[in-house]
Amino acid sequence: MKLDIAVLSGDGIGPEVTAQAIKALEAIAHNFDHSFIFKEGLVGAIAIDKTGNPLPDETLELCVQTDAVLFGAIGAPKYDNDPSAAVRPEQGLLKLRKELGLYANIRPVKAYPTLIDKSPLKREIIEGTDISIYRELTGGIYFGKKELSDDGNIASDLCEYSREEIERIAHLAFKAAQKRRKKLTLVDKANVLESSRLWRKVVTEIATAYSDVTLDFLFVDNAAMQMILNPSQFDVILTENMFGDIISDEASVIGGSIGLLASASIGNTCCMFEPIHGSYPQATGKGIANPIAAILSAAMLLEHFNLLGEANAIRDAVEKALELNLTTSDLNPSNPLTTEKVGDFIADYI
Amino acid sequence: MKLDIAVLSGDGIGPEVTAQAIKALEAIAHNFDHSFIFKEGLVGAIAIDKTGNPLPDETLELCVQTDAVLFGAIGAPKYDNDPSAAVRPEQGLLKLRKELGLYANIRPVKAYPTLIDKSPLKREIIEGTDISIYRELTGGIYFGKKELSDDGNIASDLCEYSREEIERIAHLAFKAAQKRRKKLTLVDKANVLESSRLWRKVVTEIATAYSDVTLDFLFVDNAAMQMILNPSQFDVILTENMFGDIISDEASVIGGSIGLLASASIGNTCCMFEPIHGSYPQATGKGIANPIAAILSAAMLLEHFNLLGEANAIRDAVEKALELNLTTSDLNPSNPLTTEKVGDFIADYI
Ligand SMILES: CC(C)[C@H](C(=O)O)[C@@H](O)C(=O)O
Ligand SMILES: CC(C)[C@H](C(=O)O)[C@@H](O)C(=O)O
Repeated sequence: MKLDIAVLSGDGIGPEVTAQAIKALEAIAHNFDHSFIFKEGLVGAIAIDKTGNPLPDETLELCVQTDAVLFGAIGAPKYDNDPSAAVRPEQGLLKLRKELGLYANIRPVKAYPTLIDKSPLKREIIEGTDISIYRELTGGIYFGKKELSDDGNIASDLCEYSREEIERIAHLAFKAAQKRRKKLTLVDKANVLESSRLWRKVVTEIATAYSDVTLDFLFVDNAAMQMILNPSQFDVILTENMFGDIISDEASVIGGSIGLLASASIGNTCCMFEPIHGSYPQATGKGIANPIAAILSAAMLLEHFNLLGEANAIRDAVEKALELNLTTSDLNPSNPLTTEKVGDFIADYI
Repeated sequence: MKLDIAVLSGDGIGPEVTAQAIKALEAIAHNFDHSFIFKEGLVGAIAIDKTGNPLPDETLELCVQTDAVLFGAIGAPKYDNDPSAAVRPEQGLLKLRKELGLYANIRPVKAYPTLIDKSPLKREIIEGTDISIYRELTGGIYFGKKELSDDGNIASDLCEYSREEIERIAHLAFKAAQKRRKKLTLVDKANVLESSRLWRKVVTEIATAYSDVTLDFLFVDNAAMQMILNPSQFDVILTENMFGDIISDEASVIGGSIGLLASASIGNTCCMFEPIHGSYPQATGKGIANPIAAILSAAMLLEHFNLLGEANAIRDAVEKALELNLTTSDLNPSNPLTTEKVGDFIADYI
C-alpha cells in the first residue's frame, strides 16, 4: 500500500517522539513492502514563531491532500498563562480538528500486565481494564460561540449540539462496542444540561439499531468516580467533547504512564493520529520523553487502513520493550533508555 | 447559642443519614448548652410526589427564615433516564442554591490514616492528602440559558461568568488558603474557554492582595490526572461550577468512601450543609448507608457558626468510630453496623 502521511510534530517533545513513530512506520514499510511518504508541516507554537499562525494554510492544505496525519504535541508555557494572548498554539489544533472534520476521537485505555505495579491504583482495581473512549471532537463548548463583554467583565462560551453531530459518532461507538464486549456507556450531565438531554435522547434512539449492545448512562461526576473505583466495568464510553477531554485524561493514569496512550481522530475524509500527552516543555531535547504513545498512534494509523498484521507488529514490539523494561525514565527510573534508544529497539524488533 | 435549622432530608437514603446528623447535633446541644430547633421541609422527588414541585414555596421560605439548612440527598431513578421529564428533583436543589445565593461550595477531602487501605489508590500516593475544594455554585453552565430548537434537534447550554461571581468566591478561597498551607490552585480550561480566561485574569488580579498565598493554574484535564497521580500536592483548589462537580467527585474516591465526605454551601445571608453523596436509591431503608458524611456536614455547620470546640467534638467521635471500625458495610464489609447504630455510637461518644 502507498500512503502519503503528513507529519505535524509541533512543540516541545513532539518532534522527538514523532521521529520514533516514523522510524517504526519505516520499518513496517520495509518489512511488509509498503510505501509511506512523509511530508512535514508546521503547527502550534513553532508555527506561530515562524509564521504568526498556529495553523498556516500550507499545513492545512498538506493535511487535506495526504491520506493521514501524524501529530506530535503542541503548547508552550509562554502562552498558557497569558489569557489575553490573541494567538495561541491550541488554536492550531482546534482549527485542524474542525477543518478536517475529525469528529470522533478514540482513546484506548488498557492496563498492561507488565506495568500494573506502576499505576497509582491498586492492582486488584485495574486488572482487566480495557476501555475504548469515543470523545466527540468538533462540537460542544469547544467550538460554540465565545463572547467577552466590551468592559471585559462578562465572558461566555456556548455548548451546542445537534442531533447529527451526536448520531455520527454514536454509530461509530456502537459499531466498536459490537466488536468488543458489547457494552456502551454514555457519559453526560442530563440532570442539568439541555445538550446532555439531547445526547441521551438521540443515543437511546440509535441503540435500537444495535440490539446486541447494552447501553447504560452515567452522570459525568459519577463517571469520574467510577473510573477510579472500578475501571474494568467499562467497555466503550461515549461522550461529548469537554467531558471526553476530562474523563480520558483521568483514565490515562490507570495504565501507569500517560506516555503510553495513543489516540485516533476520525472524520469522513481524513484521519489523524496522536499521543494523548502534551508537549511537556520541561523535557524537550533531554531524550527522556516516552515515545511509546507516538509509536502506538502509528499502530492506530495502520489499523485504520486495515493493515492489521502491521499494526500488531508494532504492538508486539512495544509489548516486548515493556516486558524487557527497555523504557524511558517514567517507567524505568533506575535504568532508563533514551527516547531514541527505545525507538531504535522497537524499530529493530519490527 | 440558639440556632434554627431547616432540615431538608430529601430522597433515598437522605432521611436515614440526616437523622443521624440531627442526633449528633442534639448531643452537642445537650453537652454544650445550646438550643437547636429543627424544622422539616420537603425537597426533591418526594416533594414532586407530594406537591408537584421539587422545591415548594414553603420549603424555600423555611430556609430563608432559619439560620442554616441541613440537607440530605435528592434524586430518584424514575427521573434520571427520562430526558423529557418537565420536572426533576435536581431542579429543587439547583433552585435552592440559586435562591439562597449559595455561591461557594466547600468540599474538604482528607485521607484518614485509619482508612488509607480502603482507598483504590496506593498508600504512598494518598498519604498526607488534605484538600479543600472551593467550587462556584450558582453560576456557569448550570444556570446559563438553555435552549432546545423547535424541532428538538439542536440543544444548547450557555456557560457565563461575571467578574463579580468570580471575585466573591476567590476571596473566600484565598482566605482559606491563608489559614492552611498557603497554596491555591485554579482549575480551568483557559486554553479553550473564554470564561476560563476571565477566571484566570480575575483570580490573578485578586492574588496580589494575598501575597502570602502561592497561586498556580491547572487545566481541568490535567487536574483530573494530578488528582490521582499526586493528590497531596494540593491545598486549596478553586474552580467553576461544572469542573468543581467533576473534580470534587473524583477526589472523593481518595478517602476510601464517598460516605465520609461533607460539604458546606455558603452565601452572604444563608448557608447549607450536605453530604456529597447522592440519594443512593438502591440502599434506601436497608440501614446500610454510611451516616458519617451527613454527621460531618453537621460539624461543618457548627464550625460555620464558630462553634469550633463543638465541631471538633463531632469530628473526634467520628474518628473514634473509624478507629474502632464501628462503621457501615462500605468500610466494614465483614462486620458492618447499621446506619442507626453508627449514629448512636457517635452521639453517645459526644
Ligand atoms: C490542547 C487542548 C486544546 C486539547 C483539548 O482540550 O482537546 C488537549 O487537551 C487534548 O485533549 O487533545
Ligand atoms: C444533583 C446534581 C444536580 C448536583 C450537581 O451537579 O451540582 C450534584 O452532583 C452535586 O454535586 O451536588
